[in-house]
Amino acid sequence: MIYLDNAATTRVYERANRILFESGDKFYFNASALYAEAAEADRAITAARRKLSDVLRAGGGEIYFTSGGTESDNTALFGAKKAKGSRIIVSEGEHDAVINPAKQLAQQGYDVVFAPIKPDGGVDEEAFSKLLTPNTSLVSVMHVSNETGAVNDIARLVRMTKSVSPKALFHSDGVQAFGKIKVDLRALGADMYSLSGHKIHAPKGIGALYVASGASVKPLLFGGGQELGFRSGTENTPMIAAFAAAAEESEEKFEENYSKKRGLIEHLAKLLTNKLGEEVRLVTDLSSSAPHILTVAFRGVRGEVLAHELEKDGILVGIGSACSSHRESRFKKLLGLPREFADGIVRFSVSEFNTDEEMVFAAKKAAEAAEKLSAVAPR
Amino acid sequence: MIYLDNAATTRVYERANRILFESGDKFYFNASALYAEAAEADRAITAARRKLSDVLRAGGGEIYFTSGGTESDNTALFGAKKAKGSRIIVSEGEHDAVINPAKQLAQQGYDVVFAPIKPDGGVDEEAFSKLLTPNTSLVSVMHVSNETGAVNDIARLVRMTKSVSPKALFHSDGVQAFGKIKVDLRALGADMYSLSGHKIHAPKGIGALYVASGASVKPLLFGGGQELGFRSGTENTPMIAAFAAAAEESEEKFEENYSKKRGLIEHLAKLLTNKLGEEVRLVTDLSSSAPHILTVAFRGVRGEVLAHELEKDGILVGIGSACSSHRESRFKKLLGLPREFADGIVRFSVSEFNTDEEMVFAAKKAAEAAEKLSAVAPR
Repeated sequence: MIYLDNAATTRVYERANRILFESGDKFYFNASALYAEAAEADRAITAARRKLSDVLRAGGGEIYFTSGGTESDNTALFGAKKAKGSRIIVSEGEHDAVINPAKQLAQQGYDVVFAPIKPDGGVDEEAFSKLLTPNTSLVSVMHVSNETGAVNDIARLVRMTKSVSPKALFHSDGVQAFGKIKVDLRALGADMYSLSGHKIHAPKGIGALYVASGASVKPLLFGGGQELGFRSGTENTPMIAAFAAAAEESEEKFEENYSKKRGLIEHLAKLLTNKLGEEVRLVTDLSSSAPHILTVAFRGVRGEVLAHELEKDGILVGIGSACSSHRESRFKKLLGLPREFADGIVRFSVSEFNTDEEMVFAAKKAAEAAEKLSAVAPR
Repeated sequence: MIYLDNAATTRVYERANRILFESGDKFYFNASALYAEAAEADRAITAARRKLSDVLRAGGGEIYFTSGGTESDNTALFGAKKAKGSRIIVSEGEHDAVINPAKQLAQQGYDVVFAPIKPDGGVDEEAFSKLLTPNTSLVSVMHVSNETGAVNDIARLVRMTKSVSPKALFHSDGVQAFGKIKVDLRALGADMYSLSGHKIHAPKGIGALYVASGASVKPLLFGGGQELGFRSGTENTPMIAAFAAAAEESEEKFEENYSKKRGLIEHLAKLLTNKLGEEVRLVTDLSSSAPHILTVAFRGVRGEVLAHELEKDGILVGIGSACSSHRESRFKKLLGLPREFADGIVRFSVSEFNTDEEMVFAAKKAAEAAEKLSAVAPR
């Protein structure tokens, strides 16, 4: 099997997985109980919080653990302080975990507007700036597009936002950025930042939300007051420890893995272009994208059919957000591709576990499939 | 170590833990992707849903997986359809994951009232019935008290509720009931029922909410539309499979383990009463309680000090809800104990992994500690 859908989810690092296993068996205590074993669990959580904070340069705020990226995004959008009926700006390229809460807020009477994206999937800054108003209370723009790997300049977008509406809170979904590009929360200046464990080789079911000091954000879950009062629910010590271990491992190998992933993706892009010429278009702008994603569009081919062909050769790829395969892709309409390419979008996404030989094989099979399928497809 | 805090959390079953471990390494695929491995993950989720549904006789509705009991309770309270300003009845004995959302709803203008509990921790049915009004839209009464093990007659409370307000939705927090007493959702008739994995030897970070067919409940988390559209977030296939395995194992051994836990708790109660006589009061009414909890009150002793004494001998107990050790216990005030007992509440809770020898040792040490501490305490 050649797994090229690492933007959808990743294999758990062995160390993180072992922590999880041993915790279930021996270190399962409730971190809020009063005995020494519980205090040890509580210390493990504190250490994990510090580790993530270090990795992300999050000293200007606090890291709160959640059940994953979707909960983090929902907490940010619903919990951020917003004046009644005020403007909320969300980029069109956001994950559904941001888009759909935004639609709920529109129903509640907020003035929700969507900022357009460019053909590479990044937000259109000029169009964004025109949407900013002094009564804008919340902005949500992802750091890295899960669909294309485009990197948004969050620091600049934050400055633009605050210059027009100083009190607006800025949220960035960092799920595809963390572990892939350098994330320095202090430099970004966002008020909220969402993280997910399973995209960086931690288990599924754990994530975090960073909240800057002074940013007014209400909890989404109420109860026992865990996570410093911000997120109730029995502390998931095993998952939290596994998440921190994965973050640490990811950080330790960051430079090496960045180059590796970048190299794999560039090689794949080159091979596909050489083989298919004008029959393939790179949606991802490799001059500015995150290292792990290559989204391409094949002419006259349906992406899901091509993905299915590749699967016969054991190659697993994504066709846009795996988190929403059950619905028609909203995304492909946004990229402004010519009609003959628009249905042929395929996302290749790598991790450090992939190899160059896999790229060669995947490119060969993808080119063969594209040629075969486009030959039979009506033009 | 003698672990007598199984109402706070439990050790993960070996089988469930192994499923989790192997999933992280080999079966980590995103269940919403389109390839065969993803479809396999999706089938595992469907099988888990069916397994839980079978165990709980949940055929009259659907099981939705969540991140745990707190999320389930929050979803039920916030998501249940409620007419603006209508009455919401919540028992005073509820977990904070119900109490605190109810307080939020009170702030939103709902007429939230709290039903008193009896000295054994169960809801006072007569007092409850007096709170029912035709404009009651939501009721939340837990199935088994996490503080005392008292079992509420949910079927009767549902009937009482519907006879006064047929459209009211009835939620029951079943976190301490599932796996401890027989739960037949069809017979109970509740519209919503919360479950937690880590109380039944599944890992932390997984739970479920049952919603009866026809009950109008909105999601709490919006996004990719997973969990049949009810709960967004990448499906946590490993945890879901582990949860179902724990539920299955728990069900297989139900009769045997029920008798075992019941026997341990009754023996412990007898030993404590024999040793301490009038110096100890059983808060738990063993004639009607769930099998795994014995809550007692020691005269003239502080519960946390006694717990700390026991810890020196390696015995871990709870002093009320572990989920809220960081705050002053709200609960002890509700039981109507004489003042000299009210501060001396200790909760012993067992699992199938405990032994009779442990009960003998725990009772001996608890009696010694109580005698020592009450001798030095001011009367």
